[in-house]
Amino acid sequence: MPEPLTITDAAGFIRTGELTPADLLEQCLARIDRYEDRVRAWVHIDRDGAREQAARLTAELKQNNYRGPLHGIPVGIKDIIDVFDMPTGCGSKRWAQSYARRDATCVERLRQAGAVILGKTVTTAYASFDPPVTRNPWNLDRTPGGSSSGSAAAVACGMCLGALATQTGGSITRPASYCGVYSLKPTHGRVSVDGVLPLAPSLDHIGVMANCVNGLAWIFEAIAGRDPRDPASAGERVPDLTYAPLTSPDPQRIAVLGGIFHERAPALHEQIVSLTRRLEGVGGLATTTNGTIPINVLDARNAPLPAEFGEVTRRHNTVMAVEAAAYHAPRLARYPDDYPPNVTALLREGLNISAPEYANCKAHQERLSRLCDALFDHYDALLTPATTGAAPTSETTGNPVFNSPWSYVGLPTVSLPFAWSPEGLPLAVQLIGPRLGEAQLFGVAARWEAEIAFERRPLPL
Amino acid sequence: MPEPLTITDAAGFIRTGELTPADLLEQCLARIDRYEDRVRAWVHIDRDGAREQAARLTAELKQNNYRGPLHGIPVGIKDIIDVFDMPTGCGSKRWAQSYARRDATCVERLRQAGAVILGKTVTTAYASFDPPVTRNPWNLDRTPGGSSSGSAAAVACGMCLGALATQTGGSITRPASYCGVYSLKPTHGRVSVDGVLPLAPSLDHIGVMANCVNGLAWIFEAIAGRDPRDPASAGERVPDLTYAPLTSPDPQRIAVLGGIFHERAPALHEQIVSLTRRLEGVGGLATTTNGTIPINVLDARNAPLPAEFGEVTRRHNTVMAVEAAAYHAPRLARYPDDYPPNVTALLREGLNISAPEYANCKAHQERLSRLCDALFDHYDALLTPATTGAAPTSETTGNPVFNSPWSYVGLPTVSLPFAWSPEGLPLAVQLIGPRLGEAQLFGVAARWEAEIAFERRPLPL
Repeated sequence: MPEPLTITDAAGFIRTGELTPADLLEQCLARIDRYEDRVRAWVHIDRDGAREQAARLTAELKQNNYRGPLHGIPVGIKDIIDVFDMPTGCGSKRWAQSYARRDATCVERLRQAGAVILGKTVTTAYASFDPPVTRNPWNLDRTPGGSSSGSAAAVACGMCLGALATQTGGSITRPASYCGVYSLKPTHGRVSVDGVLPLAPSLDHIGVMANCVNGLAWIFEAIAGRDPRDPASAGERVPDLTYAPLTSPDPQRIAVLGGIFHERAPALHEQIVSLTRRLEGVGGLATTTNGTIPINVLDARNAPLPAEFGEVTRRHNTVMAVEAAAYHAPRLARYPDDYPPNVTALLREGLNISAPEYANCKAHQERLSRLCDALFDHYDALLTPATTGAAPTSETTGNPVFNSPWSYVGLPTVSLPFAWSPEGLPLAVQLIGPRLGEAQLFGVAARWEAEIAFERRPLPL
Repeated sequence: MPEPLTITDAAGFIRTGELTPADLLEQCLARIDRYEDRVRAWVHIDRDGAREQAARLTAELKQNNYRGPLHGIPVGIKDIIDVFDMPTGCGSKRWAQSYARRDATCVERLRQAGAVILGKTVTTAYASFDPPVTRNPWNLDRTPGGSSSGSAAAVACGMCLGALATQTGGSITRPASYCGVYSLKPTHGRVSVDGVLPLAPSLDHIGVMANCVNGLAWIFEAIAGRDPRDPASAGERVPDLTYAPLTSPDPQRIAVLGGIFHERAPALHEQIVSLTRRLEGVGGLATTTNGTIPINVLDARNAPLPAEFGEVTRRHNTVMAVEAAAYHAPRLARYPDDYPPNVTALLREGLNISAPEYANCKAHQERLSRLCDALFDHYDALLTPATTGAAPTSETTGNPVFNSPWSYVGLPTVSLPFAWSPEGLPLAVQLIGPRLGEAQLFGVAARWEAEIAFERRPLPL
């Protein structure tokens, strides 16, 4: 049983009785003991509570009561999401001891699916982009990325097998990629934001990190869907991703996007084009080594991006700054010491943006979203590098420029590690799927996961 | 301008420009300075924030922007209700620094109506019945009642003009009565419980305290009505109580309830029968001294109470104990030190009640609710003493036996002070109205308020 286990592996061992939830939790706690003082992924670890949950879930199994593949899986929860009777610190000094009186809906659903809620993972202040205390486990001088820094680092270290994270710009995909773990940012509105600190509501997403695509899919299935407590949550049916196999279109029609995704990271873009060539075989559409579903890469360099895409970075930033200021401005005025420099600058920027400018951005966001939806008339998924490169030093949280467009248009994304940089840091690709098309996206991603066969390495700690 | 002002008076002075919100707030803050060290009504007082709100509301008036009769009225919020960026302590040591990330719906609505949110008022632990630090301003050796202890004491002292309170047994009516202020417990479900700590959801009500019936009505109108964040909130239209005058049935058909309301407080019951005789004049139905609407008291002693009423106290307690345990049991097991004796006993009782017994109580609650609804085929309102007597010593929070039946059946109640006990403590009556019939109940109560002409006394502090 090679540690750290993926959710896929652990779920298999638990199903067959080779592993109990209690033993799996102890594996995770031992890894926390070993790495946490250097990595600092956690704000709050509930050892006693987790042991109690794991014991109960172990007892349930003895009585043949199996909840599904998340039964007994230890997960971390980003510290802007409420967990009953744990503090929700949000990276704020003032709020550090703010206990939640109930679970956020997404946490409540995870619990019901059998997950063990292990604790709260570090967030940057208010899920913005001031560097956190967390370090990248692949190189302690590098950033884990942000804002879901602790979730990414904890999953990378096997301190937990999955984690909830959130993204407004690139706060899920970027830290996951820097830390070498898989991530999902669902369709906007697909997962209830009840019990979660807002940053910019029209861009905010709850998502998932794990060490395998199945883990993402199972957690997604558990937490997604209509929630009366979040009237804006999507009412569409959540697909069965547990008992129905993940299926991919055959062949997959994939567009490797160019434009900024080429310009801002030409070397990494080349690497991805090579990867796609390798996967589809020589000479275009062909059966891959592994097998059954050919990957047909179309438009590998000439991205069919709408002209409106040219303004996406600037306009995304405007929407984020304005909506964040709408929430935070009174607190910033009153408790400036509770706001570190980067988020302070963002809020000040938001306060200085004219309302008509914001209204123009909201109209652009709507228009670009519809144009991006139309891309899926021709493609099953879009492909880009997940970041502009490997994790930079810990003075920043890295560049979200490849992720914020998908937060802006609300399309679901999955990221997968695919290679190691010469310095020994993970690199990742990002697949973008159609709106509410997470099932198809997981199918595509599972195929890529199998074909890439990412080399997992031991932590250099 | 005699202090403390009622909301009716203050709203009049603010409307005519004789008083500004800023000056009214300073009156309240001065009274806090004068009395708070002895009365201890507050957990958190936000002087700076309140001054900023009052200044803004004063400026709005200069620009002829009048929000309505709550414009500039300082209010206190019971400390189990969330106010943005103030702690919601719930009377728990562990939760004392738990800042709220957004306003509860009822608080948000009060703000929009122009109220100044002054701070958080003392609650007993978890809104149960362990005696709090707060003292009765009419006699510091007496309890202010509970669980909305601070709200009642603060309004009685004129530290604020109105307050939000909550009731599961007698937690609004009893402290209001002991402290000589007016109270409203609305129909169950009429005011959203979003952002409020539950005690027993099928019995929990958000309500109001003030020094006049208009104050209750205006705050009720502001906070009541459908809330998407509380799917159980009542969708029925909230009546206009601000620009339409409160109207009473003419004559009022009032039943003075006997049964337990006589047995448990015979002297006070006699006093109320005398009061009704005085108000209706000699010889039954007649025009009262003051005026226009005769009060016709029917069945002054022989209450038409359903036989099912005999079990109401015991069954109410069962429902409360069970539902409270459903929420608190895991915390009680883990942090017993955070639970004082009375609430601990309640929760332990709840844990020992069999589920079928609870199911029987829920069926009884539903049946009795429908039977009580039918009383209003014959009466416009029911009348009882509001409590079994004046405030007892501070070792208890007093007896809720006259209030918990109305929490159980969910009917709206208004309480009004009507006399002083020989020891100089206030006594109150309780009017019960038809389900969702708050408008009519306020009309009846306003008439009684005028006829009673309660003698307001200076605080003996």
